[in-house]
Amino acid sequence: MSVTAADGFVASGIACGIKASGDPDLALVATADGRPVAAAGVFTQNRAPAAPVQVSRAHLAATGGHAAAVVLSSGNANAATGPEGVANAQRMCAVVAVGLGVSAAEVLVCQTGLIGVPLPMPPLETGLPALVSAREDGPAAAERAARAIMTTDTVPKQTVVEAQGFTVGGMAKGAAMLAPDMATMLAVLTTDAAAAPDELFRALRDAVAGTFNLLSVDGSTSTNDTVIALANGRSGTVPSHDELTGALAEACGELAAMMASDAEGATKVVSVVVTGAASDADARGAARRVAESLLVKTSLNGEDPYWGRVVSELGSAGVAFDPDLVEVSYGDVVVCSGGVAARHDEKALRARMQGPSIELRCDLGLGPGRATVLGTDLGYGYIEENRTTS
Amino acid sequence: MSVTAADGFVASGIACGIKASGDPDLALVATADGRPVAAAGVFTQNRAPAAPVQVSRAHLAATGGHAAAVVLSSGNANAATGPEGVANAQRMCAVVAVGLGVSAAEVLVCQTGLIGVPLPMPPLETGLPALVSAREDGPAAAERAARAIMTTDTVPKQTVVEAQGFTVGGMAKGAAMLAPDMATMLAVLTTDAAAAPDELFRALRDAVAGTFNLLSVDGSTSTNDTVIALANGRSGTVPSHDELTGALAEACGELAAMMASDAEGATKVVSVVVTGAASDADARGAARRVAESLLVKTSLNGEDPYWGRVVSELGSAGVAFDPDLVEVSYGDVVVCSGGVAARHDEKALRARMQGPSIELRCDLGLGPGRATVLGTDLGYGYIEENRTTS
Repeated sequence: MSVTAADGFVASGIACGIKASGDPDLALVATADGRPVAAAGVFTQNRAPAAPVQVSRAHLAATGGHAAAVVLSSGNANAATGPEGVANAQRMCAVVAVGLGVSAAEVLVCQTGLIGVPLPMPPLETGLPALVSAREDGPAAAERAARAIMTTDTVPKQTVVEAQGFTVGGMAKGAAMLAPDMATMLAVLTTDAAAAPDELFRALRDAVAGTFNLLSVDGSTSTNDTVIALANGRSGTVPSHDELTGALAEACGELAAMMASDAEGATKVVSVVVTGAASDADARGAARRVAESLLVKTSLNGEDPYWGRVVSELGSAGVAFDPDLVEVSYGDVVVCSGGVAARHDEKALRARMQGPSIELRCDLGLGPGRATVLGTDLGYGYIEENRTTS
Repeated sequence: MSVTAADGFVASGIACGIKASGDPDLALVATADGRPVAAAGVFTQNRAPAAPVQVSRAHLAATGGHAAAVVLSSGNANAATGPEGVANAQRMCAVVAVGLGVSAAEVLVCQTGLIGVPLPMPPLETGLPALVSAREDGPAAAERAARAIMTTDTVPKQTVVEAQGFTVGGMAKGAAMLAPDMATMLAVLTTDAAAAPDELFRALRDAVAGTFNLLSVDGSTSTNDTVIALANGRSGTVPSHDELTGALAEACGELAAMMASDAEGATKVVSVVVTGAASDADARGAARRVAESLLVKTSLNGEDPYWGRVVSELGSAGVAFDPDLVEVSYGDVVVCSGGVAARHDEKALRARMQGPSIELRCDLGLGPGRATVLGTDLGYGYIEENRTTS
């Protein structure tokens, strides 16, 4: 049921006409009783944030972290659209607010799609009231919402986490422009746990740091990235910081894995696991460098265990590195040890390179630092998907 | 005549058997009289430098910047090969030194090819004496040397610069793993200008900074990158720092442009010109971010002027940026002004996107900083070239 799984949340998804294809393009997640609840958001670090990012940030600041709904649209990012884009995003919140009987600042907005194209408002003026009217509980409504935020995604992405005494549900979209911080993505999480807005924010921030922000498909950080969490307290459970962060991170982690699997043109998901780094920050830097290397990514696409490229990327990652200590493995097959080629079972290695997921392990032999970055291979499909937008 | 164009230099190139294909794989550039001259080198910043990089650095340090020859091989990078790899690179210098009647430290070595594979010494033991014997003056010998360092290059890369009172000749290889600092590349420059070793080094370093180090094909910095310059003073001209740097930079710039044109699988060369940045360093960071963006590169491959991706990359480049001030142009066609779409001549824009070179201009509107980074598009050919090494 995903985003409606926690008690007290409703959703809807419709096609309003932003997408010329007629596919669903407008979604709503709201509290069932229309009352504002604790809300938190983590947004893109891009210095050209889209209009909806600017508006949602302002609304959360104005309400001290409360919202009754999140409205989401796909097909147009409303980014690089200037003051008119901001006015349009505000107008979307205002129309939804009227339908729910709350203030405009109690509605948050997320948008995804093409950058630099003015947002068409007529379809939204007619679509938004219909969207609000269509909101309801249950898995069908949740899936309609999850489908309405898809762009180049091929499958809707939903998750439910049952924690001790509370539930977290979530939906997300994202298949390209995925990189820390953050992935090009939208996600909405709902929970019936009780949490003050500042506690919800800290838990969300920590959950995102260990999940979405360690996902890198193409190294691009988009203008629209947003993760929003709503907590209505209906379960009566007041989780600790660790309990809440853990449940949110589990939900975010599942959604991040779905994004990697559905990444544009990717045939494999690769977990780059760096251990033995001088620090966790070094490990993240090294893992990201390897995961984002075009040469490593194309090798993975070709199922070619060319570890020399991995060592070269580790050496240029800007982290503490001693080439004589490095060990590289695909799964449990060690191919490089002490910085030189290691004898290994060729048949076992071939088996590790095949299939839809590869674990690429790098031990730097220097210290306790470790990190895992989730990435993908790079093949013909990515080129095909991205060479033109028309 | 390239590397033999300046008075007093000879070259040779042969096939010794490192490459299974039987293609040329061993080259020599030497002083005609076998006497050591002023020598300088700029090497990869990769923390896993290949054995030949370690050996050439040590030799330049030992001689205080003097060398009589550079020996170069292709087909095997002799990187990630441990102490045995270093001994093998030293042995190559020693064999050449015997042939020339100089000390081993007066010979420098460059290698390029697959990483992590032990260097086969038997073909080198027989090939190196033959290589030394074959050295001669003239364009045919220079071209044989330039061909013997090719890997995935499709054309040999040579240049001659006639400066005021002296000549610079050069050859280079490089078609992938090209990124600051430095490009995966080998280059040897020779000149009959007179310069002390430390002056030659400063001029070479400055020339490389403005040329090879502003070339980025795939963001990877290799284990083997080396640029070496030899100056024998035969012309009797003692150029100023600016004169020497200018001539070396002209030679390096021509070789860098040849590398971009010949980059693996590329169909277009793109000059990303950033102006109006807060500083030159910011401009370089922004230009590199745009030039290395997979999404921008695939758009260029598809001749799609999707400037939204450019703005998004500028916003996440980690440099001072105000989205309301940015202007983006393809050639002279402004497509984004004040951070939003600009009316433009569609037909003129289509014309700018076609053809083998594209100029992508970004003005940040903030200050005097400017930089140009040379890159390429990303298409099916890159994937085909790199997905397997076999």
